[in-house]
Amino acid sequence: MSILTLDKVYDAKKTLNEIARKTGLVHSIYFSNKNNIYLKTENLQLTGSFKLRGAYYKISKLSDEEKQKGIIACSAGNHAQGVALAAQKNNIKATIFIPSTAPISKVEATRSYGADIKLIDGVYDDAYKKAIEFQQETGGVFIHPFDDIDVIAGQGTIALDIFEQIEEVDAIVVPIGGGGLISGIAATIKQIKPSCKVFGVQAQGAASMFESIKENKRIELPKVNTFADGTAVKFPGDLTYELCKKYVDEIITVTDDEIASAVLALMEKEKIVSEGSGALPVAAVMFDKVKLENKNIVCLISGGNIDVNILSRVINRALLKTGRLCDLTIELLDKPGQLRDVSAIIAQYGANVIRVRHNQGGEGDSINDCYLKISLETRGFEHFKEIQDALSEKGYKILSTVQ
Amino acid sequence: MSILTLDKVYDAKKTLNEIARKTGLVHSIYFSNKNNIYLKTENLQLTGSFKLRGAYYKISKLSDEEKQKGIIACSAGNHAQGVALAAQKNNIKATIFIPSTAPISKVEATRSYGADIKLIDGVYDDAYKKAIEFQQETGGVFIHPFDDIDVIAGQGTIALDIFEQIEEVDAIVVPIGGGGLISGIAATIKQIKPSCKVFGVQAQGAASMFESIKENKRIELPKVNTFADGTAVKFPGDLTYELCKKYVDEIITVTDDEIASAVLALMEKEKIVSEGSGALPVAAVMFDKVKLENKNIVCLISGGNIDVNILSRVINRALLKTGRLCDLTIELLDKPGQLRDVSAIIAQYGANVIRVRHNQGGEGDSINDCYLKISLETRGFEHFKEIQDALSEKGYKILSTVQ
Repeated sequence: MSILTLDKVYDAKKTLNEIARKTGLVHSIYFSNKNNIYLKTENLQLTGSFKLRGAYYKISKLSDEEKQKGIIACSAGNHAQGVALAAQKNNIKATIFIPSTAPISKVEATRSYGADIKLIDGVYDDAYKKAIEFQQETGGVFIHPFDDIDVIAGQGTIALDIFEQIEEVDAIVVPIGGGGLISGIAATIKQIKPSCKVFGVQAQGAASMFESIKENKRIELPKVNTFADGTAVKFPGDLTYELCKKYVDEIITVTDDEIASAVLALMEKEKIVSEGSGALPVAAVMFDKVKLENKNIVCLISGGNIDVNILSRVINRALLKTGRLCDLTIELLDKPGQLRDVSAIIAQYGANVIRVRHNQGGEGDSINDCYLKISLETRGFEHFKEIQDALSEKGYKILSTVQ
Repeated sequence: MSILTLDKVYDAKKTLNEIARKTGLVHSIYFSNKNNIYLKTENLQLTGSFKLRGAYYKISKLSDEEKQKGIIACSAGNHAQGVALAAQKNNIKATIFIPSTAPISKVEATRSYGADIKLIDGVYDDAYKKAIEFQQETGGVFIHPFDDIDVIAGQGTIALDIFEQIEEVDAIVVPIGGGGLISGIAATIKQIKPSCKVFGVQAQGAASMFESIKENKRIELPKVNTFADGTAVKFPGDLTYELCKKYVDEIITVTDDEIASAVLALMEKEKIVSEGSGALPVAAVMFDKVKLENKNIVCLISGGNIDVNILSRVINRALLKTGRLCDLTIELLDKPGQLRDVSAIIAQYGANVIRVRHNQGGEGDSINDCYLKISLETRGFEHFKEIQDALSEKGYKILSTVQ
């Protein structure tokens, strides 16, 4: 028998009907290519991520005495918000420990759900230490972000949603951080429809579950490095490792640039905001890492809590990496009309000029030199190459390019 | 009898069931304050806006002979994409005239639906002239973006969706450009439930319908000025003016800064991408311009096709305008440790440093002066003020601030 029974997942569903949104399952024309791609939009869940499900179900299982003492969590992100709202809806006290390095927007969002926030100097581990101390003082219940069977059951309800929303599903692609989300989903899927494949996706810079499954034992990474902060977990859980080993078909890794492209594509094509971790499954599909054909594949967009400052950088990075934003430095003769002529060539090729810098005799140039640095919006690498060729043909010397 | 009968709207609905998404109606905790706010997410419609509805229904009403000759449209935005996909789904030829100043992303999206694109040098009016010439040569059908009763009926189906999705709706808030969307919705609403209020919203810089209703005749604006390009229409339609006069309760205007704040809030709080025009109703609600209390209000998010480069600028502007991004220039004594001390004060108050420039003896400063320019992420104006006060107290001279 599984550690996670279907009875438990259905029980979680009954509880969550009170509060959680049944988020949409959307067919995506843009992402459908070799396969039919559907997006399960848990980024549109209350609190902006699936974490509400596990936290709310966990709290519903506490005794009155436990509820009285309040709950405690440590998180800089989605878990904090999920626990805070779940506690508010249950009228119990939540104390959330957040490292001071967390983005202000996430702290404020958590505070808006009425939680008591303890900002702790340092990183996650420092905040975690304080949370445990506080737990020992107060006797409150510490809500683990993933390695807890009730939390896992709550996340598993997403699989039940999906079965209600699409008749024939051949595969589900799910982000992995600590593994709570995929454990719940995979255990539920495989007990209901074993033929349905379950793929996990991790950022290359935080592939702890990938490494653990490969090595056949739980591996702790010395460090994690990815902008997908929601899945930047060094060490998989105990329960989640077991459930992944048992139920997950394959774990795929993607790079940060692939993730950034997926975040941008979700915004531009599907008009939804995904955080880095939420876009892992789409990145895997976009870059052809899910080896299936003519299947119905559900990509789970797990959350949308991305700091807008980071989002701006992600957009820029993705535009650069896909050849849609390009920098060009051209040497000019210092005589009139050069800027006009270069502009005319660029306009003729249908590129938009985003930024221009025109310098005479700056540092590192000889006193007579003059150069023009232009940022262009282009259709892609090929388009950029056409423009460079046209400029070269007219005698302009291209000093450097950044794509 | 109305120019637009319910029979026609129901007929449009039957036709659109083949293709259009029934987009979600989401209750928003964040925007609900004095009223219960719901978001009708037509930005998640195929092609990223409601325009598909009108275009598809219009095409379905064409004769075989008309279909044979193909259809023609002129647009730099949502109408282009709506017409292109509607034509593709009907296997007919679409020729779309687009001014060359349109963002590349919109041109590419339209092309991706298989339309024949004619990029015309100049602005909208130039493209429109060419489209009409082409129409006269080919005898194809020109699809008007708003002043067409079939197009208006298609947009009206959104009202039928809403009545199916929420039992008690007291008011609907809708963007107005040419007036096609609100005409269809208002005519439908008022014939089904006359007590339901219909509010229109326009950008202050493109308030042609607002002015027309006020002056009791159609007014053509000399120019339009707003980043909400989807509703930047100089002259309301004939039909749409009549329908608005008859059915719309009130027209509200909002500023571009208010629209930018709404776009940002929709991204951060609801995780959806709205273009400027799509966020008009939310801007009206956020800035308390809809004078209702304890009502169920639906804000229609009409589209999400915003160019990502513009989106970056909108985010920045909104962060500045809400006190969450602030610039500070401080005079320093040119001695060691000053940067450290200033940083310590800022850190103590929990602001994040985004960018730092440290200059000695630059232009306009005396040779001994040294100043520090810092961009900060703050919680709001009050927070920024606290930081300034703390710096002043420690003897630092604040040269300038930008909020």
